[in-house]
Amino acid sequence: MIILGIDPGYAIVGYGVIESIANKCKPIAYGVITTPAKMAMEQRLLIIYNELNGIIDKYKPDEMAIEELFFNTNAKTVINVGQGRGVCLVAAAAKGVPISEYTPLQIKQALTGYGRADKNQIQQMVKMFLNLESVPKPDDAADAVAVAVCHAHSRQLNKKL
Amino acid sequence: MIILGIDPGYAIVGYGVIESIANKCKPIAYGVITTPAKMAMEQRLLIIYNELNGIIDKYKPDEMAIEELFFNTNAKTVINVGQGRGVCLVAAAAKGVPISEYTPLQIKQALTGYGRADKNQIQQMVKMFLNLESVPKPDDAADAVAVAVCHAHSRQLNKKL
Repeated sequence: MIILGIDPGYAIVGYGVIESIANKCKPIAYGVITTPAKMAMEQRLLIIYNELNGIIDKYKPDEMAIEELFFNTNAKTVINVGQGRGVCLVAAAAKGVPISEYTPLQIKQALTGYGRADKNQIQQMVKMFLNLESVPKPDDAADAVAVAVCHAHSRQLNKKL
Repeated sequence: MIILGIDPGYAIVGYGVIESIANKCKPIAYGVITTPAKMAMEQRLLIIYNELNGIIDKYKPDEMAIEELFFNTNAKTVINVGQGRGVCLVAAAAKGVPISEYTPLQIKQALTGYGRADKNQIQQMVKMFLNLESVPKPDDAADAVAVAVCHAHSRQLNKKL
């Protein structure tokens, strides 16, 4: 099963594609979609939409997992990240890819069994789970891989119940 | 010039299509896109995306005008409205429709010359400007028409400067 993990945003959207077989996760691709700060918001959203469509067409994920948004005290940021996240959701929905959502806490717990893990610990777990030589860079790509791994674990857990 | 006004949201998206010729505005169509509360968010966003695409294909607006979001104390609502708004922006951008954004204050001022106008006054001005027999219902449709009229006025003003 191919899982696409998404760390949503409008300036940077992280993506991570993994293959989940039984209890193992294999990395396929990860990276970020970036949009220029000076560009009009709708054009930035269109870049995200088009690039994400390309990623879905290329890797044909069976399922998508996406981070739920934190509340952020900066309202403008919340709105803009919400806009970017909406575009990611609609791109996957239009292609019939089922979507699961995880909170940052769920992702931490799935990767480390411990809700208070820091960013560095999460990234080290991502590296370990996927047998990578180094932590995916930038952080947004690592976060996207983390939500994909979280979804793989969550599916395994649900099977065992 | 055909202008599509949008009152963004995720449960209800208002739309209003008007024709602006010289100093006059003519109503063409208005209404709302509604999405079922019990449906998964990505499916609700997909309804908005598909219906808005249909509206753009049908009325072929030259430009789109959309309300900027207010800060709302309910973070969950801000995120969800942001997601719905992002889908509206990307639908128009994908079809090459130029987008202008107006704050609620700008809309009020454009319609009444007075930033403190209440909802009812705005709606009465919309009715008057468009020679309608009654105020568009529901409120979301009236708000969408208002932002379209605001854009028509703003374009006329800019021409005169």
